[in-house]
Amino acid sequence: MDSAIFSYIAGFLDGDGSIFFQLVRRKDYVFGYQIRSSIAFYQKTVHAEILHWLKEQLEYGYIRRRKTGVSDYTIVAPKEVEEILRKIQPYVRLKKPHVELGLKILGRLPEVHTVESFLELCEQVDQFKELNYSKKRTNNRKIVEAWLRCKSLYAPVETSSEMKRVLIKNEG
Amino acid sequence: MDSAIFSYIAGFLDGDGSIFFQLVRRKDYVFGYQIRSSIAFYQKTVHAEILHWLKEQLEYGYIRRRKTGVSDYTIVAPKEVEEILRKIQPYVRLKKPHVELGLKILGRLPEVHTVESFLELCEQVDQFKELNYSKKRTNNRKIVEAWLRCKSLYAPVETSSEMKRVLIKNEG
Repeated sequence: MDSAIFSYIAGFLDGDGSIFFQLVRRKDYVFGYQIRSSIAFYQKTVHAEILHWLKEQLEYGYIRRRKTGVSDYTIVAPKEVEEILRKIQPYVRLKKPHVELGLKILGRLPEVHTVESFLELCEQVDQFKELNYSKKRTNNRKIVEAWLRCKSLYAPVETSSEMKRVLIKNEG
Repeated sequence: MDSAIFSYIAGFLDGDGSIFFQLVRRKDYVFGYQIRSSIAFYQKTVHAEILHWLKEQLEYGYIRRRKTGVSDYTIVAPKEVEEILRKIQPYVRLKKPHVELGLKILGRLPEVHTVESFLELCEQVDQFKELNYSKKRTNNRKIVEAWLRCKSLYAPVETSSEMKRVLIKNEG
């Protein structure tokens, strides 16, 4: 596809789009949580045509028409998000740190087979909240760790002094 | 300059920018009003760096840091707005009607020497409010016409039936 199209999409995403990662509770997941990646574009439903055009270019994802009069076009499948991030990476400016951190997380995702490496990724997901100035109270590494400990899936023998402090504090 | 940069800027403008025209009261103007053109980009001041980058690329205009925590980068000089609109025209999508109408107005601006042609342009400026779904009560063609009539600068001998209706209605 034309590089002008990807640079346009990069500009649109920088202006009014969003790249974010979340830890979503999943009862059927080994580690209890899913690392969910999202690229989202928003627009008043009256202008939703541009979202359909974006979907034609990027192929993946789905468009939702909300009752608030705003529609969004979202891509969540990790492979699809990774492919799109790679394509816009040369052009994106404002969200360059998001793209880099996102690709780092997505690149390691298939290699995550241990609790330790999963928790490391959760920590990188936490960094997204800072990039996005997100104030929403959502799941974070500590919550995932607490769940894993509760299920006896995680019992670190060695902890850094910082982690010890947190654990002591949490356990009262 | 690189076409990738203009397509990026077109995308950014479509996502979070604005193109608008206004009729601004000017006591020292022959027709009492100025047709002001604007291209504006907005961003939280914490991300104002992107506005400075945009200004480096487009060269014209100025950046304002508002107390609300939002900064804007605005270009208003007609020649400068015209040049920028021409450069982004091939890439812009959502605001294509704005760019086309804007270039139409700006192209005719230097030829406006009569009250009639000025009022015609005012009417095109009114169309911008519809493109932007603007609900703000600002000056429009009818207000300019009223001022021009009051100053005895405009006294149409022939009026269309629609215009007659408006004038009769306005004059009670």
